[in-house]
Amino acid sequence: MTRARTEITRLREKARTDRAELDALLDAARVGHFGLVDAAGRPVVIPTAIARDGDRLLLHGSTGSHWMRSLAEGGPTCVTVTELDGLVIARSAFESSMHYRSAVLFGACSALPPDEIAPALDLITETLLPGRSAEVRRPTRRELEATLVLALPITEWSLKVSAGWPDDPPEDVAGDVWAGVLPIVRGYGTPNPAPDLRPGIALPPSVGLIESPRRSQTESGPR
Amino acid sequence: MTRARTEITRLREKARTDRAELDALLDAARVGHFGLVDAAGRPVVIPTAIARDGDRLLLHGSTGSHWMRSLAEGGPTCVTVTELDGLVIARSAFESSMHYRSAVLFGACSALPPDEIAPALDLITETLLPGRSAEVRRPTRRELEATLVLALPITEWSLKVSAGWPDDPPEDVAGDVWAGVLPIVRGYGTPNPAPDLRPGIALPPSVGLIESPRRSQTESGPR
Repeated sequence: MTRARTEITRLREKARTDRAELDALLDAARVGHFGLVDAAGRPVVIPTAIARDGDRLLLHGSTGSHWMRSLAEGGPTCVTVTELDGLVIARSAFESSMHYRSAVLFGACSALPPDEIAPALDLITETLLPGRSAEVRRPTRRELEATLVLALPITEWSLKVSAGWPDDPPEDVAGDVWAGVLPIVRGYGTPNPAPDLRPGIALPPSVGLIESPRRSQTESGPR
Repeated sequence: MTRARTEITRLREKARTDRAELDALLDAARVGHFGLVDAAGRPVVIPTAIARDGDRLLLHGSTGSHWMRSLAEGGPTCVTVTELDGLVIARSAFESSMHYRSAVLFGACSALPPDEIAPALDLITETLLPGRSAEVRRPTRRELEATLVLALPITEWSLKVSAGWPDDPPEDVAGDVWAGVLPIVRGYGTPNPAPDLRPGIALPPSVGLIESPRRSQTESGPR
């Protein structure tokens, strides 16, 4: 088979080739599912926090993590990043589906050199909670040494986006069954202070500011 | 290495062995990420809707899907199901993390025989939208023939749950940095009727009822 493995062969109309759309998904998603092949040739799928750094995807973990070390060896991997945006409720179960965005990236990870770890961790922190890295102390040498940061180049990828209305045949549209889209909403709730938080420490800007915008921007209808 | 591959070796305190906790995650999550090994021995990760049917996990797709047919061949697979429940905002970047629930299941899928497909699809519909299967027409023979339903037995699995407070060292707790948990909220927004919905068709009970309970039950704080 000479077909590229990034070629989408099913539901081709949902394929996207716009890198900006890929980046938007990678920036919105907090977790990717990394595939590896174990020593016995069997697949293993590991969920890991991700952050995009330009043309590469960063992931981090403990130097004690078996799977992080396996990924660092640079064997072939595949990471899939999926966000669900709604239920497509058609007039039949058959036509019902979901709104989703799903990216599949192929490649190999490599470990960042020691001097790139601190800036990469800042970027990861800023991706999750903008402004946070300036609110906390700098990582210690010991913390940096305990952390493995890997990068996967964003080169070989495919993206599938389902964002349409139910597509029922005329005989079903003529019937009495409701059809539409139920959006899935994501956001943040009210921050819970740690039980050991010392009195008088106010909610910092990073946590206070992220709440409402994230919550309101996530509701999506069909486009 | 004789260790079982379901043994959790990192962050052991987060390991859970209670089947009810696994079921709760599988029932709450809508998507699983299935790992396969392609013909060249490389990993591939495919996102697919899942529904638990007792002691097995069901997934469905088109008989035209290459990856569904690959899974149906019964080779070894791994499916990982992850839900993010919050950001753990510690006093340092190093101690910051996430609240998550993550299950990894190993095994092999098998295709359901033709007479089990319709009831399995009803169960999948009911899992996503209780009451919906009675609101829509029955699937046609052609629709059933175009659908592949696979089952993965829930036998070999591990579950990891992160649900605690930030665990900062005393010298950081003594400082002036805020710490706590920012819950991630999930739910449904307002249903959008399809543009071709005929006038006078009211929102059905399945869609009307799912909205508020789901939205309110999803906010989680540390336990």
